[in-house]
Amino acid sequence: MSKGLTSKNDDYSQWYNELVTKADLAEHSAVRGCMVIKPYGYSIWEKMQAALDKMFKDTGHSNAYFPLFIPKSFFSKEASHVEGFATECAVVTHYRLKNDGKGNIIVDEDAKLEEELIVRPTSETIIWNTYKGWIQSYRDLPILVNQWANVVRWEMRTRLFLRTAEFLWQEGHTAHATREEAVEEAERMLEVYADFAENFMAMPVVRGVKTPNERFAGAIETYCIEALMQDGKALQAGTSHFLGQNFAKAFDVKFTSKEGKLDHVWATSWGVSTRLIGALIMAHSDDSGLVLPPKLSPIQVVIVPIYRNDEEKAKISEAANALSASLRARNISVKYDDRDTQRPGFKFAEYELKGIPVRVAIGGRDLENGTAEIARRDTREKQTVSRENLDLYISDLLDEIQQAIYNKALAFRTENTREADSYEEFKRLLDEQPGFVSAHWDGTGETEKKIKEETKATIRCIPLNNRQEEGTCILTGNPSKQRVLFARAY
Amino acid sequence: MSKGLTSKNDDYSQWYNELVTKADLAEHSAVRGCMVIKPYGYSIWEKMQAALDKMFKDTGHSNAYFPLFIPKSFFSKEASHVEGFATECAVVTHYRLKNDGKGNIIVDEDAKLEEELIVRPTSETIIWNTYKGWIQSYRDLPILVNQWANVVRWEMRTRLFLRTAEFLWQEGHTAHATREEAVEEAERMLEVYADFAENFMAMPVVRGVKTPNERFAGAIETYCIEALMQDGKALQAGTSHFLGQNFAKAFDVKFTSKEGKLDHVWATSWGVSTRLIGALIMAHSDDSGLVLPPKLSPIQVVIVPIYRNDEEKAKISEAANALSASLRARNISVKYDDRDTQRPGFKFAEYELKGIPVRVAIGGRDLENGTAEIARRDTREKQTVSRENLDLYISDLLDEIQQAIYNKALAFRTENTREADSYEEFKRLLDEQPGFVSAHWDGTGETEKKIKEETKATIRCIPLNNRQEEGTCILTGNPSKQRVLFARAY
Repeated sequence: MSKGLTSKNDDYSQWYNELVTKADLAEHSAVRGCMVIKPYGYSIWEKMQAALDKMFKDTGHSNAYFPLFIPKSFFSKEASHVEGFATECAVVTHYRLKNDGKGNIIVDEDAKLEEELIVRPTSETIIWNTYKGWIQSYRDLPILVNQWANVVRWEMRTRLFLRTAEFLWQEGHTAHATREEAVEEAERMLEVYADFAENFMAMPVVRGVKTPNERFAGAIETYCIEALMQDGKALQAGTSHFLGQNFAKAFDVKFTSKEGKLDHVWATSWGVSTRLIGALIMAHSDDSGLVLPPKLSPIQVVIVPIYRNDEEKAKISEAANALSASLRARNISVKYDDRDTQRPGFKFAEYELKGIPVRVAIGGRDLENGTAEIARRDTREKQTVSRENLDLYISDLLDEIQQAIYNKALAFRTENTREADSYEEFKRLLDEQPGFVSAHWDGTGETEKKIKEETKATIRCIPLNNRQEEGTCILTGNPSKQRVLFARAY
Repeated sequence: MSKGLTSKNDDYSQWYNELVTKADLAEHSAVRGCMVIKPYGYSIWEKMQAALDKMFKDTGHSNAYFPLFIPKSFFSKEASHVEGFATECAVVTHYRLKNDGKGNIIVDEDAKLEEELIVRPTSETIIWNTYKGWIQSYRDLPILVNQWANVVRWEMRTRLFLRTAEFLWQEGHTAHATREEAVEEAERMLEVYADFAENFMAMPVVRGVKTPNERFAGAIETYCIEALMQDGKALQAGTSHFLGQNFAKAFDVKFTSKEGKLDHVWATSWGVSTRLIGALIMAHSDDSGLVLPPKLSPIQVVIVPIYRNDEEKAKISEAANALSASLRARNISVKYDDRDTQRPGFKFAEYELKGIPVRVAIGGRDLENGTAEIARRDTREKQTVSRENLDLYISDLLDEIQQAIYNKALAFRTENTREADSYEEFKRLLDEQPGFVSAHWDGTGETEKKIKEETKATIRCIPLNNRQEEGTCILTGNPSKQRVLFARAY
């Protein structure tokens, strides 16, 4: 195991923590719960941002930026939002420090804010307060805005990427003239997220809606995508909320319809965060390190020369540079690592740890034979191939790897999605083979809570287009019309 | 004047404020000093970010992300940094709100932080505390990292883009093994900023260094670019700091050199912010609205159809769509505005307000003649040209406009840069024709302060490669070896 990574089968949690650190993705900072996203980790986030941002713009959205701070009173305005968000928040109370004369920096008590400011945990309130000034008539609608930003939720138990006090995300906030249009938008963005998860992250997801207990604070309906990690725990990878008229009512945002009627505006919000980097790691990686899908890998191909002397190195470099040029012409990102300070074996382990999808090694014999050794990261298979048309070969291979990683994750999920028809079977499955368990539920919050207390499993979602099927709740035996998806989750 | 914009000659400040608001760039928020950057304003920031980010990466830098919060004690560690930054800051003292039982949200006094956190005004301290863990040997150097982030400085008098409590920026933080390498980096990044200002923003800048009084808190040398706005006031558009070993000493960051010697690491930092949007506006715009240089205009070409009936509109649309396609093939961004709800004149005024560099109008007669009317925003000149090879014509025109805007700004600066050889002349020039005034100064902070108190003019910079010239200080008559650049400034 390169750099002594703990095996994921021995201790999945330890494996994850070591991998995040050793692959130079992120680390804890001096500030409790806040992480430093290191350059390599951030470059994956940039790939994610670029893909998502394009998808948002292709669906008609623009970016904007709203204040980091929210006046405390704003949280009192939407009743259910208060309960969800006005709790574990960073509160700004003062606006000046001073020197106490003894060389210590202290808070200047004379500079106390009249009203405390909350560091945004999410921006519905400040945005809807702003939209009030933007919307008078149906002609001002829809507003399709997204924001890339940092948010803070004072988490007590943090884990790099998965749960941190500060994290980076995007939050879309849209305003519509009708309920139907808002619902359509919430569903459209869920599909954008699912598309991104499956086609960029190579991570299959279940599209569904949350139960009332698990809804976003202030939402009428919360749509979600749920993915299964390699340890059988589920991870919520993105949510899209139909907010009804709740925030428009809280902030008094009305519009005049085509028919001249005054009505409150309909809203959605939707977001994904740096948590997705945690999901990406846990969905695919192995004991040798990261496994990155080609579409999100900052470097897709690395070329390592294997030489005995400077003369040989010069010839290999010539071949490597030609290959690099032909790959770049195909928009494939490539790095040629000709460092003399490290041996090839060290480099191989390093790029395995960092998850580079394709490694090309060129040695003296390859020079003679017109070949190269190609190793794919996902299967760790090696193959010696001709250097003729190698750019085309690698281009196809990257597509194949993208698909193979997805297929592997899908097969894993299929294998680990079971049906349970009794509470005993439900509990046995969760313990013996963690994964999604599809089971009947009587639809009440009490039952959901009891199952959670007893098994730590939550209802991840009610899948969209769920098959209707008569059955009885695994806990209460009460009638049920459909199965829902349970799992223990991150 | 479209939408009743105040003339910039009547009241420059009022003109600026109205323009920012009416062109939908930004607005004040409910939070004192914090702005909302509206979608159109943000799209200009995105263009700036994309260009700068590419320049940073082309010079070997990577992006990363560091915490929003900085422990209060960090500010005490670098003595001069304390004085500059540990003053007007947002201070987080609590981490929880609660319901007081009467329906009010209040700060939970039980959730008080042991050590207060400061919302970053700049990140040297938290970053150098992090670098301590990254650097052991010369092999770990250089570190070339940039961060795109929000920062907060509690400004009392705010103006949209120019001075706000929260603003967006990038901050580069690099670590080097030698003084020479760090100085070279600081100078390289100044040149990147100057290149960006001149070739993207079409805004000529003076490259220089700040006087000790005006240096960044904690810097050994502060390099800067200074631009002249149309009202004759200067604006600092970007700074790059050589920090010496100050932060490495404050945070105990040492490395082992090639020769096995332990030494403190050398540092630079450099940044530009959303302030550049303010500079862009004030450098070029006029009484009809924004004038955007083509390279930073979110939309470069707008096509407006002028039709008498649906049949004519259909034919014009066909021509417009063909033109759009051929422009897009040249990577020119284009919008076809065929809204029926607004008249052509309204659209013309709107796109002038928004600063779109080229407007194409196609009417019934143009259909017959195979022509189109082209209006350029910068000169407001109109011309009827053939639609044959119009894409090529427009492509060349965009280059010409980019250059013309720069030339105009350069001519303005040249005209408004004067030499003064006496204090009387100095004051007269500042009052009669505000601009840069080049004058001798005795090199003391006292003189600099006195001139500032008496005239409101500050030394903007000592230009790089300044001509050495014997003279006497305009205030004290003491000997001086070079002129420095004074101006009243934003």
